[in-house]
Amino acid sequence: MDRSPVLVITALGDITADLVVGELHERGVPVVRLDPATDFPEPARLTVRFGAGGFAGELTTATRGLDLVKVRSVYWRRPAPYGDPRQAESPERRFGIEEARAGYTGVLTALPGVLHLNHPLRNRAAGSKPVQLATAGRLGFLVAPTLITNRVEDARAFARGHGRVVYKPLHGVHLPGADGRNRTVWVSPVHADELDDSVALCPHLFQVRVPKVADIRLAAVADDLFATRIDTDGDHVDWRQDQRLVRCSPISVPDVVVDAVRTYLRTFGLVFGAFDFALDSEGRWWFLECNPNGQWAFVGEETNRAIAGALADVLQKGASE
Amino acid sequence: MDRSPVLVITALGDITADLVVGELHERGVPVVRLDPATDFPEPARLTVRFGAGGFAGELTTATRGLDLVKVRSVYWRRPAPYGDPRQAESPERRFGIEEARAGYTGVLTALPGVLHLNHPLRNRAAGSKPVQLATAGRLGFLVAPTLITNRVEDARAFARGHGRVVYKPLHGVHLPGADGRNRTVWVSPVHADELDDSVALCPHLFQVRVPKVADIRLAAVADDLFATRIDTDGDHVDWRQDQRLVRCSPISVPDVVVDAVRTYLRTFGLVFGAFDFALDSEGRWWFLECNPNGQWAFVGEETNRAIAGALADVLQKGASE
Repeated sequence: MDRSPVLVITALGDITADLVVGELHERGVPVVRLDPATDFPEPARLTVRFGAGGFAGELTTATRGLDLVKVRSVYWRRPAPYGDPRQAESPERRFGIEEARAGYTGVLTALPGVLHLNHPLRNRAAGSKPVQLATAGRLGFLVAPTLITNRVEDARAFARGHGRVVYKPLHGVHLPGADGRNRTVWVSPVHADELDDSVALCPHLFQVRVPKVADIRLAAVADDLFATRIDTDGDHVDWRQDQRLVRCSPISVPDVVVDAVRTYLRTFGLVFGAFDFALDSEGRWWFLECNPNGQWAFVGEETNRAIAGALADVLQKGASE
Repeated sequence: MDRSPVLVITALGDITADLVVGELHERGVPVVRLDPATDFPEPARLTVRFGAGGFAGELTTATRGLDLVKVRSVYWRRPAPYGDPRQAESPERRFGIEEARAGYTGVLTALPGVLHLNHPLRNRAAGSKPVQLATAGRLGFLVAPTLITNRVEDARAFARGHGRVVYKPLHGVHLPGADGRNRTVWVSPVHADELDDSVALCPHLFQVRVPKVADIRLAAVADDLFATRIDTDGDHVDWRQDQRLVRCSPISVPDVVVDAVRTYLRTFGLVFGAFDFALDSEGRWWFLECNPNGQWAFVGEETNRAIAGALADVLQKGASE
């Protein structure tokens, strides 16, 4: 039996990672779990060598020593970033944090011939909303009319012309408040009248609110697709705001969406993607976004187990397919 | 004649970009030049639309209006980044800067079917030194023995075992001093005795100092390679420290290096790379690093013109080859 381990890079207490790690444990696949933000520089230590003999290296954590050449696959599941260079109290400290990020992530993504689920740089490429929307449109998804602009007159005309329009942040969804706690920037309705010159400060994303009967979250794991219909009591623009009001049920995926999803993953070099759709009254699926590192562990126990199983399949097999 | 413009995204006064823009002007290829850090949000404005009609958008600068669908190619030449979220005076302002970065870069990399020289995310992937070293070794380059570690005992053993060893930063090369001005972190010799527990603070890169007779800088533009031998008066570890002492002369590239360089560019999806080699007394080329956005305009007027011409060829042709 193959004793080479799966390296799981995640934050402590990530329940999504827990499900996958549990599945790998049941199968007897060795797992080494690492959280760069809490494990480096102590107790974890990292050494790698390059040169005539190729690549060699070892990682030691509090409990394990790991030969990096033997790593079977790497599961990147939202690790807390190593330090925050923005908070550094001196230029030297900031330099150290940036070196640490480049070193730890650099080494762990340099492992030769190793499957990454997903590679952090592919997550980054696939995380850009403009790139998502352009790609989705090209691949045949239905995309709700969307405007990205820093011209207030264009924003007003779009909102007036379409009536029901929402604003979405392009990048961040968290804004620290005066108390230091993060507030979430929700998707929210916008009216032409409230748009003023502050639109010019940075590009804003406005999207037509598709008349929908339900939301759909689709988890794609390589070629396996798991789609969940999300019905919400009341009229919520953003169903994530109150998940107690939500009912989840499996839904089958139209062939045209199956094909587009698979091509989308291949285009971005992703193994996993969490797609959001709006389902309209004619049964059409409208692409909203694809989060390459999205949450999926809320959709019901049976589907959760199936997704965890599919992820474990991919990690267990590694890149040797 | 094709009137579609090349979009040049660069900082004001970048002499490398000037050479390429000059070459494109001579050929009658329209150029729109943009520096996100100084041009946004004023005088530049950006609007793009996604939806049933596909992608559409326009960019206006101080002097030009540009239909984004008509862009032929994009030359990313070290644009100054838009703002610095680390310096933001409030969370709201930081959010705005991060949205602006995601929006401007996101939109400009989302242009469908456009050649990017180089795509910023490919630059990023190719910029990681651990990934560079692992890839170079795999592709048959000679790689000087290199250690990346945060274990002081491993660092000491490496320095003792190899004798002549240098330290290189993994990521940043600038460290702001007390006066606010950047100091450069140079490549510098290291002795085992001076290594202390501070090595544990972050991963450090140590590399054996290859006994060299000269340095080589190779600019690769798609399949065209331009190699320059750099001879230095005196014993400089890092020839960039005093470029007045440097003599540049063209040198022909061994076949094995030609093949490895072309494969290297393909592996990272790069159109351009600036490779550094050490040339030893037996004529062997030792891979030191590849900067996907490296400087090349210092190697002599004739070679400069040839490189600018090759870059202009690629940008003029666009992705329609």
